[in-house]
Amino acid sequence: MLDQAALKIAQQRLRAVYDPQRFRAAAQQWGELLASHLERVQQRETRVLNWAEPVANIAEAERWLDEVEVTGAASRTTSNAAGSLTPALSQGEREESTDSQRFAKIVRQMLDRGHNLHHPRYIGHQVPAPVPIAGLFDAVGSVTNQVMAIYEMGPWATAVERALVNRLGEQIGWQRDSFAGLVTHGGSLGNLTGLLTARNVALGGSWEEGVANDGAKPVIVVQGDAHYSVARAAGVIGLGTKQVLRAALDERRKLDPQKLDEQLTELIAQGHRVVAVSACACATPIGAFDPLRDVAAVCRKHGVWMHVDAAHGGAALFSRRYRHLLDGVDQADSVVWDAHKMMFMPALCAFVLYRDKRHRFETFRQEAPYLFDPSAPGMAEYDSGMLTLECTKRAAAYGLWGTWSLFGQQLFEDLVDVTFDLGRVFYEKLLAAEDFVPLHEPECNIVAFRHVPAAMKAAPPEALGAFQRELRRRLIESGRFYIVQTNHGGVGALRVTIINPLTTTEDLDELLVTLRELGAELLKSDRP
Amino acid sequence: MLDQAALKIAQQRLRAVYDPQRFRAAAQQWGELLASHLERVQQRETRVLNWAEPVANIAEAERWLDEVEVTGAASRTTSNAAGSLTPALSQGEREESTDSQRFAKIVRQMLDRGHNLHHPRYIGHQVPAPVPIAGLFDAVGSVTNQVMAIYEMGPWATAVERALVNRLGEQIGWQRDSFAGLVTHGGSLGNLTGLLTARNVALGGSWEEGVANDGAKPVIVVQGDAHYSVARAAGVIGLGTKQVLRAALDERRKLDPQKLDEQLTELIAQGHRVVAVSACACATPIGAFDPLRDVAAVCRKHGVWMHVDAAHGGAALFSRRYRHLLDGVDQADSVVWDAHKMMFMPALCAFVLYRDKRHRFETFRQEAPYLFDPSAPGMAEYDSGMLTLECTKRAAAYGLWGTWSLFGQQLFEDLVDVTFDLGRVFYEKLLAAEDFVPLHEPECNIVAFRHVPAAMKAAPPEALGAFQRELRRRLIESGRFYIVQTNHGGVGALRVTIINPLTTTEDLDELLVTLRELGAELLKSDRP
Repeated sequence: MLDQAALKIAQQRLRAVYDPQRFRAAAQQWGELLASHLERVQQRETRVLNWAEPVANIAEAERWLDEVEVTGAASRTTSNAAGSLTPALSQGEREESTDSQRFAKIVRQMLDRGHNLHHPRYIGHQVPAPVPIAGLFDAVGSVTNQVMAIYEMGPWATAVERALVNRLGEQIGWQRDSFAGLVTHGGSLGNLTGLLTARNVALGGSWEEGVANDGAKPVIVVQGDAHYSVARAAGVIGLGTKQVLRAALDERRKLDPQKLDEQLTELIAQGHRVVAVSACACATPIGAFDPLRDVAAVCRKHGVWMHVDAAHGGAALFSRRYRHLLDGVDQADSVVWDAHKMMFMPALCAFVLYRDKRHRFETFRQEAPYLFDPSAPGMAEYDSGMLTLECTKRAAAYGLWGTWSLFGQQLFEDLVDVTFDLGRVFYEKLLAAEDFVPLHEPECNIVAFRHVPAAMKAAPPEALGAFQRELRRRLIESGRFYIVQTNHGGVGALRVTIINPLTTTEDLDELLVTLRELGAELLKSDRP
Repeated sequence: MLDQAALKIAQQRLRAVYDPQRFRAAAQQWGELLASHLERVQQRETRVLNWAEPVANIAEAERWLDEVEVTGAASRTTSNAAGSLTPALSQGEREESTDSQRFAKIVRQMLDRGHNLHHPRYIGHQVPAPVPIAGLFDAVGSVTNQVMAIYEMGPWATAVERALVNRLGEQIGWQRDSFAGLVTHGGSLGNLTGLLTARNVALGGSWEEGVANDGAKPVIVVQGDAHYSVARAAGVIGLGTKQVLRAALDERRKLDPQKLDEQLTELIAQGHRVVAVSACACATPIGAFDPLRDVAAVCRKHGVWMHVDAAHGGAALFSRRYRHLLDGVDQADSVVWDAHKMMFMPALCAFVLYRDKRHRFETFRQEAPYLFDPSAPGMAEYDSGMLTLECTKRAAAYGLWGTWSLFGQQLFEDLVDVTFDLGRVFYEKLLAAEDFVPLHEPECNIVAFRHVPAAMKAAPPEALGAFQRELRRRLIESGRFYIVQTNHGGVGALRVTIINPLTTTEDLDELLVTLRELGAELLKSDRP
């Protein structure tokens, strides 16, 4: 049944694929391709977004998979290094240079078709132009496949994650050894993890018995502008999205503590269990930071779990000038803080932090005997699988640990200060411009605004909103800038997040110029 | 309020951090460090696992974060390349070489403290020694931070993912354009996603209203050896872990279709809604593949959603010799298939595939207007955030797409054939050895066994199990091999997953020799 000869041949082919020399040659090419790409992007020599329609891009991606079968795969029989072209090539050398060319072609294709977040005119979603060297630290984990779930699979990955949990918790203001935390794949999973823990704490037995929601249903009270993942979490964990109640906001779109107090009083009087109050630091639409200290006092008064989505704003704790925005965050029961936002790490590296470490095992109440070794019961404390939705989990904190170890903490303060400052600079430019309207005074690097040329001043709200949206679509498809859209007062608007330290004040001037130009074109055309 | 001078200085420091020349120099060092490391590891010149106690490792990881503050961070004011040491160094050059040395020290630390999955004697968990070059493709996404959620943020990341969803679905046997799929961060999230979809389909209204579980509660029926994430998913999505019912297994630990039929008949007669049947291809303890075609017939008869956790075994579809193990998988409603297992990609790249594409939007039933643009409604089809638990999602399929484009599909067949064949080879070695007992005939690359030296032949089960566990602990802490432990018949056992194409039959011989040696030592000591 077993064909020993076939086995040996296949093993030989695989050794060629795994050959370290081949990796060395590819890594050298890779570094050069990436560095040159970063140069061109940072010098504004490329477009920001390389726009193509989805159907065309998918067909192109499939074409490469087809092509390799037709034209032949890279050689998997030679185990020598891929070398550079030389005048007289042996058969083996010809194969190698073909391999090497194909490798470079694939990398170039990925770069040419992607989104250039390092372009100084990328100022869009809350996804940063990351510290480039962080990607190298991250890739140490990818190439060698460092993972967790249990400590022994990723001892250093676990150690690095725990060290950073300690640092971030202390940054919040908590006492060492009193809190706990974990890393997960993004803020949405972070919110889900925190709210699941809150559910299990508030609704004893829901883990084993299911959510008993007859009678007055358990509810979650959320900031009116909270990220969609918070309401979604209620749908996922069996509470139902209708049990997500919006808390009233003040005129700056911040949670109003007094109204929250009234709301909780009423809900509890009606017999509802309030699973959690979910506050924001900051909310995404205009970057509003809730008054956390006051919200915490209300939550404590009613004995309700306080969750803070600080995915974006957590890093402001590194800034002496901006950390006041998070005053009171130390009172939260759970905090989500994305290092892949304002700590400028590549996606994904989201922290979930619990003020009281006793809550860390409330999320899941389960044994997995084949994973967790009864001969070393003390290890459960260090097995990430006990705390996270993931079982196998990549070493998602390698990028942050390496970057911090190389550049120190000052880097994070600079990143916050520069980008938050530029938010203010941009706001002032909008104020000064006749044909632009900022929609709020920014607290951070998020600014929502509209372009309102003379011809649009008397337009009805719907037309004004449609104009913003169409303007943005033309802008991003042109590749000249990347910004996003939002709603403000139910009407479409433009929004930037200055999440790129390479963006200059001149770039911000040029954004207004470009929007004017495209806006004028749009008004001349038959659209909208 | 805004200090323009301070802003300029901080911007200058940040430009030095982002300098492409600095990245180029670091990438060159990085490639050389990784390649040399792979050489030493593959040549068996290192230990497999670099064992250290958690507390010591965490203290060490924190020490680096402290040290950078004390000894000074890498220079963030020079914008020149890090060069190699030369006889006469200027001030700038001295800084650069210090930077470059510190970068290398950090990378070396990560490599020296990690787990060496490329060591041919790593044959442990279902986490592979990945194709090294896949890590380079993956890192194109990390360095440039290609992400999804909405199509425009990661047009090529989306395209690549969709192209691969198409390929894997066709490999299952589905017709193009009839199925749908997505990539998520691991098999556990994959199972959660699939079962959440099943819940929303089976329990109409549960998304909005919450899980109504009064009366006869809705249940999930799972393979008795299913991964813990399946039962955990029931706890997460509000059904309750007590509503997870184990299906009976036959003597080969495979789901028994006839008993499943009886179980479903009874449950439905009792008034329970059966949210899903979750089958395995394969289950983790001994790698048993369920008879999917027969299970599917039972599910169809009762109108129950069939979920297949093919996280490990999905890739066998690439093998002409082993694809019969998945016969009938095309009948499943949802399938989880991890490319970071038997397609040998770095973690994490898990596919969730739906036979009927109309189910893709059942998972979440929600709008996120600020993300999803009403001016381009057709884009929702390509916005990954509509389908996945993650909002921002890394370009998790870059590694697979690049590797497939470079080497072609034959690579995946070879990887399955070689490792599954070696499972059989190892089994035969165990059979032939006087003092080893295989616990099953393997169907794939997972083999559970015990070492039973003469002195242990009459030991009671508990002592025999404790002996296996203690033996394994000594083995892995020695760094000579990495294998895992499991339970079989409630008694501790050893388990290997041959998930490393560099493992040879000689390594497998040596594993038995080493276990004998450590076992003899253990018997001489006062433990267990």
